[in-house]
Amino acid sequence: MFETVISSKTQTVLIGPDHPFMMIGERINPTGRKLLAREMAAGNYSRVEQDALAQVAAGAQMLDVNAGIPLADEPTILAESIQLIQSITDVPLCIDSSIVEALRRGLDVYEGKALLNSVTGEEERLEVVLPLVKKYGCAVIGISNDETGISEDPDVRFAVAKKIVERAMDYGIPREDVLIDPLVMPIGAMRYAGRQAFSIIRRCVEELKVNTCCGASNIAFGLPARSPMTATFLSMAMASGMTSAILNPLHEEVKTAVLAANTLLGNDENCMEWIAAKREPAAEGDKRGGGRERRRRRRG
Amino acid sequence: MFETVISSKTQTVLIGPDHPFMMIGERINPTGRKLLAREMAAGNYSRVEQDALAQVAAGAQMLDVNAGIPLADEPTILAESIQLIQSITDVPLCIDSSIVEALRRGLDVYEGKALLNSVTGEEERLEVVLPLVKKYGCAVIGISNDETGISEDPDVRFAVAKKIVERAMDYGIPREDVLIDPLVMPIGAMRYAGRQAFSIIRRCVEELKVNTCCGASNIAFGLPARSPMTATFLSMAMASGMTSAILNPLHEEVKTAVLAANTLLGNDENCMEWIAAKREPAAEGDKRGGGRERRRRRRG
Repeated sequence: MFETVISSKTQTVLIGPDHPFMMIGERINPTGRKLLAREMAAGNYSRVEQDALAQVAAGAQMLDVNAGIPLADEPTILAESIQLIQSITDVPLCIDSSIVEALRRGLDVYEGKALLNSVTGEEERLEVVLPLVKKYGCAVIGISNDETGISEDPDVRFAVAKKIVERAMDYGIPREDVLIDPLVMPIGAMRYAGRQAFSIIRRCVEELKVNTCCGASNIAFGLPARSPMTATFLSMAMASGMTSAILNPLHEEVKTAVLAANTLLGNDENCMEWIAAKREPAAEGDKRGGGRERRRRRRG
Repeated sequence: MFETVISSKTQTVLIGPDHPFMMIGERINPTGRKLLAREMAAGNYSRVEQDALAQVAAGAQMLDVNAGIPLADEPTILAESIQLIQSITDVPLCIDSSIVEALRRGLDVYEGKALLNSVTGEEERLEVVLPLVKKYGCAVIGISNDETGISEDPDVRFAVAKKIVERAMDYGIPREDVLIDPLVMPIGAMRYAGRQAFSIIRRCVEELKVNTCCGASNIAFGLPARSPMTATFLSMAMASGMTSAILNPLHEEVKTAVLAANTLLGNDENCMEWIAAKREPAAEGDKRGGGRERRRRRRG
């Protein structure tokens, strides 16, 4: 099966149908986080640092880094954030911006083979981002929208995905270095957002033979109990073949669903990861008549 | 799309890809429940009654009824249980036995169109159970094993499923009255049990155009944290096209996953069921300066 290789200076990770799902931490993103935005704009990266460490501790194997702050010097902030995060963690990063100059600056300072987030199917974007991907030898997330916007027809979105993969190959970028994002719309606003995403993902796997990724939290936007809804979405997307997502690993339901789905896809041999995460130690004290100190639960 | 109609005397339910998932309560089953077995064998059905009401209250739209107690008069106990349950609830039932005489007695007393659980691909079973299904005009669950046992090859299990559907049609049983159970093995014992089940389910939907059902709890047998593993399995099976399962609706994770997956498949219009189950009432008291009594949370 196909696989995508991503690396930092010291760590290499693999994305693919025969590997555990790639959890990419979503937290380092000032969108909707006013305090973080203000701090990052002022060159204060202490919260970025905390978010990086907390997400890695929670099980993120990669981190997304976004510095999209209105009126701020995004390229510089993104580059500084990447350098800082690479100095305190080993996990590879996803360089996330809609500004080409920010992507370029990020790639310039990044040590290893990054995942670039993102290119769309718009001609103008393809023509500037794909040469960057080729030049830096990184991988890239291709989002299935183009000049006409985000189609509600999954066949049109798949056609955009196909165009992105083909165009990347024209630039000499190997197929396995393109991940498709089917674009996950909020289920509260669009009744068939789930079915559409699952269908596009399945076609990407079966017809294009590429990995897929998405921003998972969007599916439950505006709904109560967002974490269990996101968790169920991820399980279903994984059953459809999705191999990575940008998500919040600090949400227990989300992490549990990903671990369980890894097991159910045969990517957790002997259920080792599941058992390590979920087992409750045998209550020996109880069996022997009590009185002994209970071991700490290892749940979560 | 195809749909299966099941009914009690007063209620009709529909199973199919365009309907909310059919949750069939699993609790009325003495297997592994010594106290229940002893009580049922002695003609004491108070626990059966409690289990029926509790499962319906928790959201089960059907109930499975099994009276498999070694050395007991299973046909009589099953028939009496069915009559009792039909006297106190409106939901349709799944008549569950491996003894043909028990199935017959159950069908004899059942009021409505039952779901019969089950027939296998064994010639001997097909020849006695299918005429019963035809005679009583009920629906039936076909389990994908035959004389050779349970194959580890999903193609073989699918072939058995296909044979059951075809044989049923030979007896004049309409395709939509056969549900296939792909046979869910414990993931702790068989690494690819999940992938196998998902693949068989998908082929049943796409090639046979029949509904599917399974005993969901078996997947997590022997593992810690069984409920979240079962919940994730159900989400993934639903993404693969599974339309019903025998499960424990009292397990909150399981019920939440089914509700979320219904929403994500577009079978919960405007997310009404999800919101009704999960919303937290607006804390009006807080907004107006506090002091008012908080409304009870409606979670779960």
